[in-house]
Amino acid sequence: MSFKTDIQIAREAKKQPIQDIGAKLGIGSDDLLPYGHDKAKISQEFINSVQDRENGKLILVTAINPTPAGEGKTTTTVGLGDGLNAIGKKAAVCIREASLGPNFGMKGGAAGGGYAQIVPMEEMNLHFTGDFHAITSAHNLLSAMIDNHIYWGNELEIDERRVTWRRVLDMNDRALRDTVTSLGGVANGFPRQTGFDITVASEVMAILCLSNNLADLQKRLGDMIVAYRRDRSPIYARDVKADGAMTVLLKDAMQPNLVQTLENNPAFVHGGPFANIAHGCNSVIATTTALKVADYVVTEAGFGADLGAEKFMNIKCRKAGLAPDAVVLVATIRAMKMNGGVAKADLGAENVDAVNEGCANLGRHIGNLKQFGVPVVVAINHFVTDTDAEVQAVMDYVEGQGSEAILCQHWEKGSEGTKELATRIAEIADAGVSQFAPLYKDELPLFEKIERIATSIYRADEVLADKKIRDQLKTWEDAGYGHLPVCMAKTQYSFSTDPNLRGAPTGHSVPVREVRLSAGAGFIVVICGEIMTMPGLPRHPAAENIRINDEGLVEGLF
Amino acid sequence: MSFKTDIQIAREAKKQPIQDIGAKLGIGSDDLLPYGHDKAKISQEFINSVQDRENGKLILVTAINPTPAGEGKTTTTVGLGDGLNAIGKKAAVCIREASLGPNFGMKGGAAGGGYAQIVPMEEMNLHFTGDFHAITSAHNLLSAMIDNHIYWGNELEIDERRVTWRRVLDMNDRALRDTVTSLGGVANGFPRQTGFDITVASEVMAILCLSNNLADLQKRLGDMIVAYRRDRSPIYARDVKADGAMTVLLKDAMQPNLVQTLENNPAFVHGGPFANIAHGCNSVIATTTALKVADYVVTEAGFGADLGAEKFMNIKCRKAGLAPDAVVLVATIRAMKMNGGVAKADLGAENVDAVNEGCANLGRHIGNLKQFGVPVVVAINHFVTDTDAEVQAVMDYVEGQGSEAILCQHWEKGSEGTKELATRIAEIADAGVSQFAPLYKDELPLFEKIERIATSIYRADEVLADKKIRDQLKTWEDAGYGHLPVCMAKTQYSFSTDPNLRGAPTGHSVPVREVRLSAGAGFIVVICGEIMTMPGLPRHPAAENIRINDEGLVEGLF
Repeated sequence: MSFKTDIQIAREAKKQPIQDIGAKLGIGSDDLLPYGHDKAKISQEFINSVQDRENGKLILVTAINPTPAGEGKTTTTVGLGDGLNAIGKKAAVCIREASLGPNFGMKGGAAGGGYAQIVPMEEMNLHFTGDFHAITSAHNLLSAMIDNHIYWGNELEIDERRVTWRRVLDMNDRALRDTVTSLGGVANGFPRQTGFDITVASEVMAILCLSNNLADLQKRLGDMIVAYRRDRSPIYARDVKADGAMTVLLKDAMQPNLVQTLENNPAFVHGGPFANIAHGCNSVIATTTALKVADYVVTEAGFGADLGAEKFMNIKCRKAGLAPDAVVLVATIRAMKMNGGVAKADLGAENVDAVNEGCANLGRHIGNLKQFGVPVVVAINHFVTDTDAEVQAVMDYVEGQGSEAILCQHWEKGSEGTKELATRIAEIADAGVSQFAPLYKDELPLFEKIERIATSIYRADEVLADKKIRDQLKTWEDAGYGHLPVCMAKTQYSFSTDPNLRGAPTGHSVPVREVRLSAGAGFIVVICGEIMTMPGLPRHPAAENIRINDEGLVEGLF
Repeated sequence: MSFKTDIQIAREAKKQPIQDIGAKLGIGSDDLLPYGHDKAKISQEFINSVQDRENGKLILVTAINPTPAGEGKTTTTVGLGDGLNAIGKKAAVCIREASLGPNFGMKGGAAGGGYAQIVPMEEMNLHFTGDFHAITSAHNLLSAMIDNHIYWGNELEIDERRVTWRRVLDMNDRALRDTVTSLGGVANGFPRQTGFDITVASEVMAILCLSNNLADLQKRLGDMIVAYRRDRSPIYARDVKADGAMTVLLKDAMQPNLVQTLENNPAFVHGGPFANIAHGCNSVIATTTALKVADYVVTEAGFGADLGAEKFMNIKCRKAGLAPDAVVLVATIRAMKMNGGVAKADLGAENVDAVNEGCANLGRHIGNLKQFGVPVVVAINHFVTDTDAEVQAVMDYVEGQGSEAILCQHWEKGSEGTKELATRIAEIADAGVSQFAPLYKDELPLFEKIERIATSIYRADEVLADKKIRDQLKTWEDAGYGHLPVCMAKTQYSFSTDPNLRGAPTGHSVPVREVRLSAGAGFIVVICGEIMTMPGLPRHPAAENIRINDEGLVEGLF
């Protein structure tokens, strides 16, 4: 039995003109700003015009802890969207944009897989509609304006040792992590040590994805802290007068992008913040717009449910006033086996015991999600190598947890493979049984918010943080930032901070290494372990083999 | 009498859908990749399909040496294009794209002015169709791959002290001119001193603008020299295997952009290399495509005729096999007065003597252009403050030079103001009287090429270059680069290398400070004087006042 690759399937897609996709959502062609024939941005005027409409149902797709075996979260998001459309519902999916830089290191990713993909795949892995380039420009304009302010007399009395605002590129470039700038003499400014992050790690990215509109965007950009004075008082982006120009640079990037699935159903692909130092969800404006034009909106969040779903609920939903009507928790037999201790090389053999072992990870996520008051359905993303006994083991386990699991075959069959899941999810969403509430109130002290997540979600015994970190949190509370949610940055591979501790560990501690204030995005980043904000390229980067072949097709990107 | 500003006029434009503009050139909507409703890229398939057609007539618009008074070269390019269409000819204009970075320093520029403009003006001053972002990405991917190669063992034995390839941003940021990268320890690579240029100064930009197609682009990218070994042997971009991936990043950017004039005539706006260290012309692919679909193509080149027209003829036309059928030399009464010694503050008063004095600059440009065998018409770009006596003085002078001058009022009247010029230019172009030849043969030794330009165009007595520079040129000749044209980088304000020496100086010397090999673009850069490749922001950057106003319009960018 031989299968087509994702890129082969994507290239065979019978795409419809993007105007036809917009028409399915009642978006006229005047309100679609086309980028080529198969991508468009939705006009601000249209978005403004639908604000008074009722919202559709919101469905979150999340997953167990990821393993190298893959769990297929995006694939399931796309498959469920197509499944809902196939059973006659008006549904749209919302996912994140891909970062350009990493595609030249490891191979680029499809948006979905098999017969559950979003197209055009190549453009989504390259410049797409230019959103990330706009974010890079806006971020670096602010950087230039800060150094320029210091150069021309430093009226604001910025302490150049305490400029926290770095620069960004959408590129994997380890040489830029740690740099000295402004060398070369008087005309080039005051030398100082700084560096570059990858664009998706920019606070501007997080802000773009959390803003309700352009006015909100500009306010948040102005609120960003970029430096401190010698007396430790903060300098805001507003103080160097960068917020207006940054907003102008971002005005098109704020408009959600519309593309389509292989089955010609609408897909919003917009924004892509890091899922560790930021919240890892597609943009609020895409999700809220989709909710105005579709009856069901299927979206996803980065990494496993301990990070992605937690942040989706505690950060994105809290800030945007959203409430999920149902949650789909994706698991694969292969990932369960790896959580159960099987090495990647041994995944081919049936191993019901390992599946049973790995179910502990699944079970904890189910329990965690229920704490948010949301109904949970497990989607088993079927691989052709899965045996019936393995699948049955998961079914039985989930039933034992008082929940339900549904086998999905969208990778192989498209919407045909998710009709059962779609039917059940639509029933649950329509029933209005969700009683969503975030895990903690705004008023809870910052350190207690961290503890709440660590004990309730990670099931750790304690949070370890030295006095300096606790004092820093207190200082922010005194400065009026105590109501912010916390944004946890830890490994995605484990409930703990040790990536090798799979399954459902207990008895562990969560050490906080550093805390950072993202005053514009509106959260406190809590760093537990090593977090890399500028990746490097591997020994043999994918870029070495990327080229346009004789048929004019891009080779090596996938 | 009160006049509307350029931006007011541009915002009142009655734009036609870009498909209608394409239709005027016989480009179907399937062959236009729209970016919004008023911009499009022309498909590679279409470009391929018209290669066997006859070329239209090529008209170059150039100017006297620029002064702070402005000479209106782009305005005249647009006005002439509209004029040709108004007299029933099928004409298109070709100009360069604007760089994003500088717009946040000084105010952004209109594309043209008054009633001779190209729209949409805002987009052209912001991200436009993303071409410059693609160039930034491609350039910096190569940078990352070089450092990555050194990091993973340096099989090519790159001398990290001799990495000549820097990084780029489309931003005015003096802090990045001179940097140290790869600090922070083993994981970040080998520290070395390097820096950033502005994107328009990238050799990738020059290459994009000189390439005939994607295969040519990839070959030239591969030919770029990025570093040297300890034995001084060169490392090419091809050696680090970056050329294929860079081509993939640039494949959309290679497609020319189509927009329109205020009078709804087609305008190609594509590419924008620096006019000092590069050749300062819009892309070859835009010009050659325009020549296949229009009967008359009006294009321009950067700075005055001593730099822009010289490079257009000796670099762009030589490499692309183009030959101009006529040249329009733009002059304004105000710029003539400044070349005649009048200060900017005193330009308001009639001063026929100063005009006569300044005519020396005009006269020398006329003579220079005739050396290329092309017919020249002087266009006097009329300002409402010009007096009849001043205009007559120029008319008389030009007649005395055996040439002709025509008064143009396109700024005030659009195509109505250029019908006379258009009629005459069409006559000349149709007559086929041009006997174009570049100023020197490929075979001339490199230093003699420099001397030929310095003595024939700048009318200098001599070229000064120390032994090190002459030896370097010899080395390149021995390495097979002797056939390349030279790309002069000197001040645009004077025929000499002293920006204050206006008019038509003689008896001066041209000191060569440095020479650089752009092996991919295919020219030797000859640097005479200080050339800045990364601008800084002024004390009060325009960015401080750029914002979106309550009506949703961009303020402060113009």
